[in-house]
Amino acid sequence: MARKVDETHDPKLKSWVESANDPGTDFPIQNLPFANGLTRLSTRPSYQGEEFGYADQILFNTIFVRIGEELLDLALAAELGYLHIEGVSDDDLIDWFDEVGEVSSIADDGEFSLHALRVAIQVLLSDENPKAQLMKKEKHLLCNHDEIDLITPITQTGDYTDFYASLYHATNVGSMFRPDNPLLPNYKHIPIGYHGRASSIVASGTSIKRPVGQQAPAEEGGSPSFGPCKLLDYEMEMGVIVGRGNMLGEPISIEDAEDHMLGMCILNDWSARDLQKWEYVPLGPFLAKNFASTVSPYIVTMEALAPFRCGAMERDANDPQPLAYMDSDSNRKAGGIDIKVEVHIVSAKMREAGMKPVHLSTANFKDMYWTLAQMLTHHTVNGCNMNPGDLLGSGTISGTTRDARGSMLELTWDGDPFAEPPVLVPGTQRTPIVLPTGEERKFIADGDEIIMKAYCEREGFRRIGFGECRGIIEPSRDI
Amino acid sequence: MARKVDETHDPKLKSWVESANDPGTDFPIQNLPFANGLTRLSTRPSYQGEEFGYADQILFNTIFVRIGEELLDLALAAELGYLHIEGVSDDDLIDWFDEVGEVSSIADDGEFSLHALRVAIQVLLSDENPKAQLMKKEKHLLCNHDEIDLITPITQTGDYTDFYASLYHATNVGSMFRPDNPLLPNYKHIPIGYHGRASSIVASGTSIKRPVGQQAPAEEGGSPSFGPCKLLDYEMEMGVIVGRGNMLGEPISIEDAEDHMLGMCILNDWSARDLQKWEYVPLGPFLAKNFASTVSPYIVTMEALAPFRCGAMERDANDPQPLAYMDSDSNRKAGGIDIKVEVHIVSAKMREAGMKPVHLSTANFKDMYWTLAQMLTHHTVNGCNMNPGDLLGSGTISGTTRDARGSMLELTWDGDPFAEPPVLVPGTQRTPIVLPTGEERKFIADGDEIIMKAYCEREGFRRIGFGECRGIIEPSRDI
Repeated sequence: MARKVDETHDPKLKSWVESANDPGTDFPIQNLPFANGLTRLSTRPSYQGEEFGYADQILFNTIFVRIGEELLDLALAAELGYLHIEGVSDDDLIDWFDEVGEVSSIADDGEFSLHALRVAIQVLLSDENPKAQLMKKEKHLLCNHDEIDLITPITQTGDYTDFYASLYHATNVGSMFRPDNPLLPNYKHIPIGYHGRASSIVASGTSIKRPVGQQAPAEEGGSPSFGPCKLLDYEMEMGVIVGRGNMLGEPISIEDAEDHMLGMCILNDWSARDLQKWEYVPLGPFLAKNFASTVSPYIVTMEALAPFRCGAMERDANDPQPLAYMDSDSNRKAGGIDIKVEVHIVSAKMREAGMKPVHLSTANFKDMYWTLAQMLTHHTVNGCNMNPGDLLGSGTISGTTRDARGSMLELTWDGDPFAEPPVLVPGTQRTPIVLPTGEERKFIADGDEIIMKAYCEREGFRRIGFGECRGIIEPSRDI
Repeated sequence: MARKVDETHDPKLKSWVESANDPGTDFPIQNLPFANGLTRLSTRPSYQGEEFGYADQILFNTIFVRIGEELLDLALAAELGYLHIEGVSDDDLIDWFDEVGEVSSIADDGEFSLHALRVAIQVLLSDENPKAQLMKKEKHLLCNHDEIDLITPITQTGDYTDFYASLYHATNVGSMFRPDNPLLPNYKHIPIGYHGRASSIVASGTSIKRPVGQQAPAEEGGSPSFGPCKLLDYEMEMGVIVGRGNMLGEPISIEDAEDHMLGMCILNDWSARDLQKWEYVPLGPFLAKNFASTVSPYIVTMEALAPFRCGAMERDANDPQPLAYMDSDSNRKAGGIDIKVEVHIVSAKMREAGMKPVHLSTANFKDMYWTLAQMLTHHTVNGCNMNPGDLLGSGTISGTTRDARGSMLELTWDGDPFAEPPVLVPGTQRTPIVLPTGEERKFIADGDEIIMKAYCEREGFRRIGFGECRGIIEPSRDI
């Protein structure tokens, strides 16, 4: 069942970290998302003041919590004696950070709950903490988020699955290829998904080399061409990270599904459309997707998202009801999440001219046809096992309007998939986006940076944001 | 380039482990495949004779080498001073087994080569080793293979990809669904593949629960049914395990591909055909496959397979040549491997009656349309990165004759896909296999065990085998 709103969401709570109290921040004391970052051994008390010249050179991975403009080093907070979890000895807590070091295992190994950790961090950062002044003077406990290289929020994802859960995205794309039959017969019965590549999940800010590959022959029976992708695209998605896993053969029920989720991040499912078109029948997308998938650095916990839960998308009267294993009262009432997702672009020329990124689209995660709980339940109904840290992508998030289309493929397509039958604007196939420099884009050009943002806002609650997911496209390798 | 035949393949080499000299064994001293197994802490010299009662209770994972009917504990061999690698100190070798413990990292981390390890193990096991009598007396250095629980040969596979590289399998399956157009236009240009699920790769001998899921509506527009899979199948495949990885954005060339392969194993890609039919358009197989994939316990190294290399399958005069990035002289001449693959079945009733398994099919891996080097090269041509231990499945291995069909879907289908146009035997769709108990099978029944074997034989060389890959189907969970 979705987490409940409790005292940790109280909008009156404030932090001694001033930037967290800014009403516009993504990261108030009610959020507290986790991140992984590289830190220096010399930040550890045991090495401070010692003559270890090398301690400044050795980088290791540690778990941070974002608060306002700052990052809190959780292991250091425990080591310095500022972080206490009820029922856990301070030594055990220090050992836990030393030995486990992956936030996804909190949910799985049961030493303490994510909720207990959330409460403990909130106490630490509260402006009512009597040690606030002491903590402000600690040299490495907090540092500006710009000073740390954040990596992927899960160090190494075990398995990554990508879904296709937006009816609007599926209808848009279906209309382009099958105008008379945009939606396949299984779409409203199955949260369609496929396995993605875990090895090529990269951190926000990683440059992406334009992929190279085969493209369909110009005419039937001809030879495919080979070269850099010509139709490079992004897909605006949200990812959910598994907390507690399940054993092989033992499905996760729709009632339990939310308890298996740790939190969410932004996901850019880069897509090479020309490679995809040629390769994907009959076994699905492969090289069109596995060259890179970018994730935002923060895991916003399901707890932090509690105030923004909403009903699952309402189905049309003619739509089939989900089969029983994917249907529950709580999923109908609170399976959705009201998250606004935005895409922006800045070209190399714009960057050189000091121009700001241009807004491309805004959609809302609550408009997904399938909920996260349905995706996770369906994924395991056959017995498939999840491990802590596994990633599930939602699929491209699109809405009904043109400016709510979550990929360039959709944005530049001159059609109305929701007309009956779906219509193309006569005489056109694809209208470019015009950038402030006069440059035109039908797909992504070298040097373009795609910037994705996501955030939740609701009257009576603090804004909860996901930060950004960024990636610049570099030219392909020489071939 | 494929490994060359050298003195380690000399058929005259014999071992002091007598069972390795039996001409029928899969595991002569020329093979030396690796396996992972659980062993007791009390087998380690540092714990022997001590008062550690618990040392007999603690199981940990160690690397074994199969020789005849025995398993050699590699780390223990190093610790006892019997295993020496040129250029590596004995202490470093002991540390390596302690710290690394995954055979796939040998190829990647460069402390010593797989070839050096092969030579060292062969020296240890040679009947000319002056310490043979000493070693025979060591209590835990060797033990019968039945005494050790072997797990998967890679402890946790990072990414698993499944290909579809048999033209005959693709044609058989294509003929069932598209009699006029059995092969899709991309098939002869692209080694078609898709990402599989790594978490559900299980060891040979693991029981597989029959999966549950959605099946297509009986009539168009109807509701899907939900329940235990009715059309459960196996797919006889070979897997290749990646040794050395590649960096994201830096493809593996066809010339280098063989150097990135550690070795091979048998792979049973269990398939729920009814789930697959309903779910797989447009994004490929998902729940139909990810409930389990079984691997044999041994990695037979590419070095051990050197004597059995053969040319890539010859293409028809009308077939397109592979694009340049997947074509090389050495791949054409030695990209194939002559491996016989067999499938056997034993039902619960047969087992109870003490009957032996029944042979279902024999095919040959040399008849694959795409070579392993082509699959690996294609997989990375877009920049996708491989990690040591990643698994690539070949796809079902089928031949031109009926008894060379590598899945039950194909075996029980009454058609000839190679007729022009492909033909179905009139009036039939599917003819059951009749077992010696009189039981009939169109697909796998509960209690059936599927047993796969693979081996290489060539005049003038010792037989090199892969052992077995086994799995019994258990009834589905209650729904």
